[in-house]
Amino acid sequence: MNFKILIKTPLWDAFSDLGRRIFLPEGIFYWSGRAKKEAELNATIGSAYGYERDFIEGGTEEWLPCYLDAIKPYSNLKIDSLVPYASIGGVQAIREIWKKWIIKKSLYDILNEKDKLGLLEKYTTTPIVTQGVTNGIFLCCSLFLSPSEYIISPNKRWGNYDNIINKFLGANIKSFEFFVNQEINLQGMKDVILDVAKYQEKIIIILNFPNNPTGYTPKRAEIEKIVNTLKESQKQIKKPIIVLVDDAYEPYVYNEGEISRSLFYDLIEVQEDVIPIKLDGITKELLIYGGRVGFATFGLKPAWVNNDEELEVLKEELNNKLEGITRSTISNTNHFYQALTVQIFQDKGMDDIVKERDKVRRLLKSRYKKINEELSSLELPDISIDPNSGGFFLFINLNPNKIKASEFADHLLKKYKIGVIPIEKLNDNINGIRIAYASIDLEKISEFVTRIRQALKDF
Amino acid sequence: MNFKILIKTPLWDAFSDLGRRIFLPEGIFYWSGRAKKEAELNATIGSAYGYERDFIEGGTEEWLPCYLDAIKPYSNLKIDSLVPYASIGGVQAIREIWKKWIIKKSLYDILNEKDKLGLLEKYTTTPIVTQGVTNGIFLCCSLFLSPSEYIISPNKRWGNYDNIINKFLGANIKSFEFFVNQEINLQGMKDVILDVAKYQEKIIIILNFPNNPTGYTPKRAEIEKIVNTLKESQKQIKKPIIVLVDDAYEPYVYNEGEISRSLFYDLIEVQEDVIPIKLDGITKELLIYGGRVGFATFGLKPAWVNNDEELEVLKEELNNKLEGITRSTISNTNHFYQALTVQIFQDKGMDDIVKERDKVRRLLKSRYKKINEELSSLELPDISIDPNSGGFFLFINLNPNKIKASEFADHLLKKYKIGVIPIEKLNDNINGIRIAYASIDLEKISEFVTRIRQALKDF
Repeated sequence: MNFKILIKTPLWDAFSDLGRRIFLPEGIFYWSGRAKKEAELNATIGSAYGYERDFIEGGTEEWLPCYLDAIKPYSNLKIDSLVPYASIGGVQAIREIWKKWIIKKSLYDILNEKDKLGLLEKYTTTPIVTQGVTNGIFLCCSLFLSPSEYIISPNKRWGNYDNIINKFLGANIKSFEFFVNQEINLQGMKDVILDVAKYQEKIIIILNFPNNPTGYTPKRAEIEKIVNTLKESQKQIKKPIIVLVDDAYEPYVYNEGEISRSLFYDLIEVQEDVIPIKLDGITKELLIYGGRVGFATFGLKPAWVNNDEELEVLKEELNNKLEGITRSTISNTNHFYQALTVQIFQDKGMDDIVKERDKVRRLLKSRYKKINEELSSLELPDISIDPNSGGFFLFINLNPNKIKASEFADHLLKKYKIGVIPIEKLNDNINGIRIAYASIDLEKISEFVTRIRQALKDF
Repeated sequence: MNFKILIKTPLWDAFSDLGRRIFLPEGIFYWSGRAKKEAELNATIGSAYGYERDFIEGGTEEWLPCYLDAIKPYSNLKIDSLVPYASIGGVQAIREIWKKWIIKKSLYDILNEKDKLGLLEKYTTTPIVTQGVTNGIFLCCSLFLSPSEYIISPNKRWGNYDNIINKFLGANIKSFEFFVNQEINLQGMKDVILDVAKYQEKIIIILNFPNNPTGYTPKRAEIEKIVNTLKESQKQIKKPIIVLVDDAYEPYVYNEGEISRSLFYDLIEVQEDVIPIKLDGITKELLIYGGRVGFATFGLKPAWVNNDEELEVLKEELNNKLEGITRSTISNTNHFYQALTVQIFQDKGMDDIVKERDKVRRLLKSRYKKINEELSSLELPDISIDPNSGGFFLFINLNPNKIKASEFADHLLKKYKIGVIPIEKLNDNINGIRIAYASIDLEKISEFVTRIRQALKDF
């Protein structure tokens, strides 16, 4: 493929060596695509097909992918949704539904600022299916980070970022202190942007709200400040800023009257080259963790193209790059869960899915309220709770001079039968425990906090 | 993890930079594992759980991962097999079943040389689940190939090898001419091994039998020659030879009285450091292409360890490396198809699965016989058929001085409504068409070959 439009955009400038090199060769797909339309006898398909009667006892005259009768009892989906490969970029129907879902989600903002999102539909790519949100992060980090290059992230982040970026790709993470005075530390973020811009021709940053491990979720006013900080930084450095918006926990926001939409929506409206990429998935949004269906969706900028035709070409070129990475790492994503997702959107409609899921959101919200109330009543000098109002977790900082997080977790487990995840990264100024209240019943939260208080007193 | 045994094996010498660097940090899994056993109140789990009654109308008192009622109609598997994450390395039950399946498959060899496979069970690792066979190839190529290093492959190979190795990893493929006088060109293979050994401290080679695109499947005597060539080469160069055994099409072998088992089985018995890695999956073996469940299984050598304890430690260390790659690229593989595979093995047993699948094998075999008979009757001077007796394809070479493969495919499609995949890599001495007889009905094969004959006459 000739990337004639893409090569002129700031995306290209921001690509890693791999990002510039990768493409999906069109040969086999060109010929099989033509054969589908033009051939009477098609010998391009690399799967065994036959008349069902020839391989299944009592089978029909239908020409189907050959399959084993043994799989039949376990799914009510058609063989065509269960057995064949899905397309490299994902089942077309779910890609289109997910784009509509992204547009729909923008309206769940309490402010419902529909009119302000004029660019969303047109300048957002058709989501490509990734093998879960992890694989979406991996895909984008591969696309943008060459070995030894830097990505920016808050110090408190999902531990798997470090696996993907450091251990797999051999790139580096530049941290900034997430919070100052219980607010997001935007000056810190800006400082590292300016710093990295000194030795790198692009800025790649990853932000995750609601956050794992802290539960931090910016309110509307904070979203605006984050957007402004990114805009100002971009104007100052004059280099593209790619923002990977890790929306894994997107719908789980609990502060009433302040439900914010993803940062993605505001960034897509920014004229400057602050380029958002939305990474989300059915994992938590539809509560199907084991489904491994995620999506990567790019926000493009009007200034990059001269007309609608160029915009379409740009989308195709970018899609080819992404499918090139998918083809060379996983080939494609499993078919069942994509088909299942299509089915539930068709059966229920988006509003009903949200309504159904809201039972879970309310359940988690009741736990969120309860645990924060209980914890705030502790009034102990050696701990502080990071600001939190969404997701599955909250984070308790421990005074590193008095209590080592791992020792505390060990003590909690041994003496009080309480399981938490300690995070102890003293170089990154982190010493605390992550509490997954998403998996503790409301009725047990008082007892949970009581035992934490007792354990703290032991130190 | 401290890789104290692994670091002393030739595997470590053969690792890429990434292979040496990668590991799965044990922190979060250590704590969640302990919490599972020791905690009364477990706040380590990053998934939403609740009593079913609290999020499903008419739900039970069971403590379950929160899920949407909308998914219920589409699978008869339990929520626990559908909704939660599978383990990083795969569902334990399927890993164990697949190891037994690998042992069982060794017995399907017509020679049934059970006694010769004394090392198989003990020195084979527990298979790690990969996201399809592609992802298994990607995983191993990442583990062994740093950018600009070489892997050896026959010139005729699955096109996606080039995507994974060249385009994604930035490594190189050293080709050898696959056939000389209708036999596998072992001298050619040995020559490139000796050549690459001059500038690389390891040899990585990938072999795929039955082969895509040619259908070539070595007979017993040829297997022995391949093994001997690899052994001799290893003795000569004194560097580890890693053999990636791409067994995607393993069960589809059609030459009666000559059904061979995978090359993996003979290589695991080799004393020299010719180290086989078996890459297979449910994709074609159980005819579930869209399932994206593959396996990577390593053959270890007795000489690498001093006792059984060290062997177990070595297996754990290697497993940690592989899970490190999985965690940082896809996190884990989808749950449904792993659970489905466990179910059908439990329901049917291995012999019955083979029996059921044999209907498909016989169907393909009848097509294989028919198309080879018809093609051999063509007796045209400008074509030759590569040796083939397995898999889904065969390959017709065209005289490059008279017919360009892509022009021929275009002509076939336009004038005769026949779809084939042309492969035209003149630098690699390839100019021909791949015919997927796996997807053409037996009744149509005569007509198919007739049209090819007519098209050839046009040139």
